[in-house]
Amino acid sequence: MSKTYEELKSRLASIHDLHMARSILGWDQHTKMPPRGGEVRAEQLGTLDRFSHELFIDDEIGRLLEELLDYEEEVGPDSLEGSLIRITRRDYEKAKRVPPELRAEMTRAGAIALPPWIKARETSDFSIFLPYLKRNLELTHQYIECFEGMGFESEYDVLLDDFDEGMTADVVRTVFDELKRELIPLIARIQDRADRVDDSSLHGDFPIEKQRAIAIEILERFGFDHESWRLDPTVHPFAMSAGTRDIRLTTRYDETDLSVSLFATIHEFGHGFYEANVDPATERTSLSSVTSMSLHESQSRMWENLVGRGLPMWRFFYPRLQATFPDQFGAVELDEFYGAINKVQPSLIRVEADEATYNLHIILRFELEQELLSGDLSLEDLPEAWNARMEEYLGIDVPDDARGVLQDVHWSGGAIGYFPTYALGNVVSVQLWDKLRGELPDLDAQFEKGEFGDLAGWLRENLHVHGRKYTSKEMLERIVGGPMDPDCL
Amino acid sequence: MSKTYEELKSRLASIHDLHMARSILGWDQHTKMPPRGGEVRAEQLGTLDRFSHELFIDDEIGRLLEELLDYEEEVGPDSLEGSLIRITRRDYEKAKRVPPELRAEMTRAGAIALPPWIKARETSDFSIFLPYLKRNLELTHQYIECFEGMGFESEYDVLLDDFDEGMTADVVRTVFDELKRELIPLIARIQDRADRVDDSSLHGDFPIEKQRAIAIEILERFGFDHESWRLDPTVHPFAMSAGTRDIRLTTRYDETDLSVSLFATIHEFGHGFYEANVDPATERTSLSSVTSMSLHESQSRMWENLVGRGLPMWRFFYPRLQATFPDQFGAVELDEFYGAINKVQPSLIRVEADEATYNLHIILRFELEQELLSGDLSLEDLPEAWNARMEEYLGIDVPDDARGVLQDVHWSGGAIGYFPTYALGNVVSVQLWDKLRGELPDLDAQFEKGEFGDLAGWLRENLHVHGRKYTSKEMLERIVGGPMDPDCL
Repeated sequence: MSKTYEELKSRLASIHDLHMARSILGWDQHTKMPPRGGEVRAEQLGTLDRFSHELFIDDEIGRLLEELLDYEEEVGPDSLEGSLIRITRRDYEKAKRVPPELRAEMTRAGAIALPPWIKARETSDFSIFLPYLKRNLELTHQYIECFEGMGFESEYDVLLDDFDEGMTADVVRTVFDELKRELIPLIARIQDRADRVDDSSLHGDFPIEKQRAIAIEILERFGFDHESWRLDPTVHPFAMSAGTRDIRLTTRYDETDLSVSLFATIHEFGHGFYEANVDPATERTSLSSVTSMSLHESQSRMWENLVGRGLPMWRFFYPRLQATFPDQFGAVELDEFYGAINKVQPSLIRVEADEATYNLHIILRFELEQELLSGDLSLEDLPEAWNARMEEYLGIDVPDDARGVLQDVHWSGGAIGYFPTYALGNVVSVQLWDKLRGELPDLDAQFEKGEFGDLAGWLRENLHVHGRKYTSKEMLERIVGGPMDPDCL
Repeated sequence: MSKTYEELKSRLASIHDLHMARSILGWDQHTKMPPRGGEVRAEQLGTLDRFSHELFIDDEIGRLLEELLDYEEEVGPDSLEGSLIRITRRDYEKAKRVPPELRAEMTRAGAIALPPWIKARETSDFSIFLPYLKRNLELTHQYIECFEGMGFESEYDVLLDDFDEGMTADVVRTVFDELKRELIPLIARIQDRADRVDDSSLHGDFPIEKQRAIAIEILERFGFDHESWRLDPTVHPFAMSAGTRDIRLTTRYDETDLSVSLFATIHEFGHGFYEANVDPATERTSLSSVTSMSLHESQSRMWENLVGRGLPMWRFFYPRLQATFPDQFGAVELDEFYGAINKVQPSLIRVEADEATYNLHIILRFELEQELLSGDLSLEDLPEAWNARMEEYLGIDVPDDARGVLQDVHWSGGAIGYFPTYALGNVVSVQLWDKLRGELPDLDAQFEKGEFGDLAGWLRENLHVHGRKYTSKEMLERIVGGPMDPDCL
């Protein structure tokens, strides 16, 4: 029986290699590729996705999975073997429904849309991006149709399931409605107090090389290791890995605003650290991924907000930050800096938003995506709808589409249904944080000494090491003993 | 009939995409990958090569080629269609003989050997690299065996044929013997004069950022375009492309020696410029490659030596170089600089060698490779044999293996049989140069004004645009009306 398993594993390893090759080409496309390389890159990405898809939906994989039913039961659902078979079976059932040509075309269209999105954003001209977004939406509809009869309750659920298995729009809506009910009045209420917080020290002159140096210094303490990681600049920050020893973070530098790259870098570190800690025994299998994108975001948001905006870690790092930027921070007390990085203030850009307003940025996107999918909102009217909702939820005026509907990379790549994972990640991050602080009461004192090993160890052991073995629901059940709970926030 | 052709072309396009993905992963491995990513990268490269190989040797490709025999004759050998069918048929006949597992293993072994080679070179310890080189040599033997009965006259011819179709060790030996007869006494003779050339201005303090800036300034005049090209640092300079609009050069900087990166960058530009100028209609086909590695090297060597070490171009660029490095060159006359960059002096490192001694570096490698293949020389004795021949040909002592047998990246990647193309490229570069200068008598005056358009145009039109349509022999016949001729040198 183990021979059948080995055969399955070996096939999956090769397919995984193609996925990783695709990741590297994607990373390269965003960070290194000369702009005019985009057209042929789209073909390359499409081809990689088509081949890996074709190889995966091969009947032989189905036959092997069939043959392994007894073996799967024998080894149990918590074993690597049992998990790989279970995960693969689910992936296979879904992939079988998607024609390779559609898979390739979605990738190709997503890659082709990147340069026009960048151009549209630079010139704040939504019309440049519109035809590409239209194409992505069409393909999304075709993709959703593939899953008819598979038991999804809504179109949106099909998309969500790719990022967080079993998650539904209903659950998201319940969580989001509760958040909205609390957050909108809260933000309006603290607006006055926020106006009195002075965050001018974060604005000024921050040479990129120095921003990078201090970020690396912080990340090294967290667990960044130059033998296995790298950090590059990009238009839109992201993290990706091509193996547990090849972790790549990107960040966006703004020479006039330190907080942009600082918190983006810490955020992406959270992603990278999750992927770096997955059990190396899962290398070259789909288990070497993560539980779900919501859990993934729980890690990035935890490092960004609960560690990175906390006072304890800055007791250690702030003197170093002052030494790096003496003109900016030499005369600023730690408390003042701490207030500045935690200022709650409705703002235009999601990735730069504070903890409180962030979720409203997500809820807005979730609602607009649903309306686009249902056809209630036309793409032509999207910028206007965006701006109206920004006014409604955050009370602010969007001056141009670059800082409005064009700000995020996701829709250019065809990633519709992804945004909710950020806010779900926020919720989960707090649930995990409550739990781990109960078990590690000494954390603050450690952070103050620049020590993050206990936190890292707890996260590794309880969450990261499992890779993609469990769903979000199973994982939360294991760690906090219950479901997702927005009350924590 | 054109439907059959379109089917072939479409299959080949996807296979070509995989080759390009592999190139990007290779580029990334040498320039960006965190060191510990190497192990899993080797698997990814091996998998890409195995799949593209399997897809290419599919019987269906053979069937299509068979069906296209009449069509090929009809469209003629100079058409893109006819050329693609002809080239593909030859590639197919060769590839069919190589098992996909061997293909993948050669790639994997070559990738795995990179970090030990870097380490061995850093510590000048050949024993670190030895087992990997042994493995590469074993695999080379297995590879050669695949071609038994195909009419190759020697083992070495099999390897040469991959880099320069139809080239044989006999031809190389004839060319090299003539070069040796001329060069060894010549170099001994001019040694005295060389000692009097002062090249101290090239040694000193050259910050990398400034080296890069002046190199880019020169390359932009030559034809480097930021929309389609990039330039990165690496251990060993190389050029690669992932499409005619995605050209990547690498160079190695030495902060104490300007000539290292300057001429490496110009050299790699020659490669990149060839690949950038191939007919865009060949994109995503094997025709978008180049005639042969010898012709490829003829271009890099031409830009490096015949343009880059010539007085005319420096009449334009030298004032700019002086402005970039005033401390080094402010008081150095152009003539003195010109003498310095053309100093003939036996030295240890091939890529830094002058025009005259360079070929002896190659001849040494060609001879050692043949002895390794035949078993006359054991790998254990290779460093000693290397050093003895350096003494014999160039009259210099090799102080350590880092500057001896470990200096080149090629053997780590399994590229045995490649080196001769450099010296053949030197020969061809001069043949082409003689020809084009006859047709473009105004070149010097143009270079003095920083204009390289006529040269670029001539190369594009006569050579580059044809991509891989013709063999070296056919190409030389078309351009200079005869075979390779070492007398030119």
